[in-house]
Amino acid sequence: MSEILILQAHPDLSRSRVTRALAQAVTAAASPRIALRDLYQRYPDYALDLDAEQAALGQARLIVLLQPLHWYGMPALLKLWVDEVLAFGWAYGPGGRALAGKDCWLVTSTGGSRSDYSPQGPHGHAIEDFLLPYAQLARLCGMRQLPPLILHEAHRVADAELHQHALGFVQTLLAYPQNCSGGSWRMPQSRASWA
Amino acid sequence: MSEILILQAHPDLSRSRVTRALAQAVTAAASPRIALRDLYQRYPDYALDLDAEQAALGQARLIVLLQPLHWYGMPALLKLWVDEVLAFGWAYGPGGRALAGKDCWLVTSTGGSRSDYSPQGPHGHAIEDFLLPYAQLARLCGMRQLPPLILHEAHRVADAELHQHALGFVQTLLAYPQNCSGGSWRMPQSRASWA
Repeated sequence: MSEILILQAHPDLSRSRVTRALAQAVTAAASPRIALRDLYQRYPDYALDLDAEQAALGQARLIVLLQPLHWYGMPALLKLWVDEVLAFGWAYGPGGRALAGKDCWLVTSTGGSRSDYSPQGPHGHAIEDFLLPYAQLARLCGMRQLPPLILHEAHRVADAELHQHALGFVQTLLAYPQNCSGGSWRMPQSRASWA
Repeated sequence: MSEILILQAHPDLSRSRVTRALAQAVTAAASPRIALRDLYQRYPDYALDLDAEQAALGQARLIVLLQPLHWYGMPALLKLWVDEVLAFGWAYGPGGRALAGKDCWLVTSTGGSRSDYSPQGPHGHAIEDFLLPYAQLARLCGMRQLPPLILHEAHRVADAELHQHALGFVQTLLAYPQNCSGGSWRMPQSRASWA
């Protein structure tokens, strides 16, 4: 029974740098408190097992969404997971309290730089503006959203920095929930920026 | 060769009111200028034919995204369509000009009311805030985004109003592109609100 559930959603792990590095660091840590759930490996046909997904959520205290940001949002399979698993009357709406009180943490990466996500950049807006659905998803389900962890320039970041980022990610998980009380949330320094 | 391409994306048309009504109105109009492409019917297995999708886009002058808003965004198959069909170097990025100069129109519906999408409502923000990815998608591909057409309270709206909404939708399509020049965009009155 793992306290921390990581929902990993990268449509092509062979072309991933950040998601793969972070998943490998979690696997290397081999903590029984952390479960890593690779959605694309589990459901190549997009046929979700809703009972299994809801059961996995039920055991978790912290739910981590580990994904690249594609077209300003979730990869399609994670979107399907949200649409189907977070059902009305289960995750939200009347009687929908299954996730209430849990913590939710978005851990993501972008191809673009931080300045690409600005009024002057090609994406025209701060990255935070695009993350509104995640915040609202947590809120509607009664979860506390932890500050998202974002690594920009996923394809350009140096190996050493990526390694440091992955270590910081895992250390943060291992320190949970002690690092996450009284409204504060501490994590090791890394090049990652906070939304 | 249709000038107007409607990408219809509702994961369960049997439970749809608005998407189904709008699609039926388009079918009844039987205009050779309008092609209706039901993505969920075409790709129940989520295995998109990228060549076919890109070819369909190439012929269109107006691209309509006809979808319910689920969890503040696109149904999963439409998200997959965006992630895969709007490829780097084709739809955006260096040499990616395949969609440049086209018009793009989001036609959507929500279960919640307009006031649900407000700081005081359960969704905490104006509906426009959640539509940023659509605007940015159009922008990045060099398309002009027409003002989204949104029908709230999809499950509660009266049949007569829904009928009127569907008629207005089709009339707007039939009047295209004459109704869409010089920066203005006219459409028949309906209960629909504009974002």
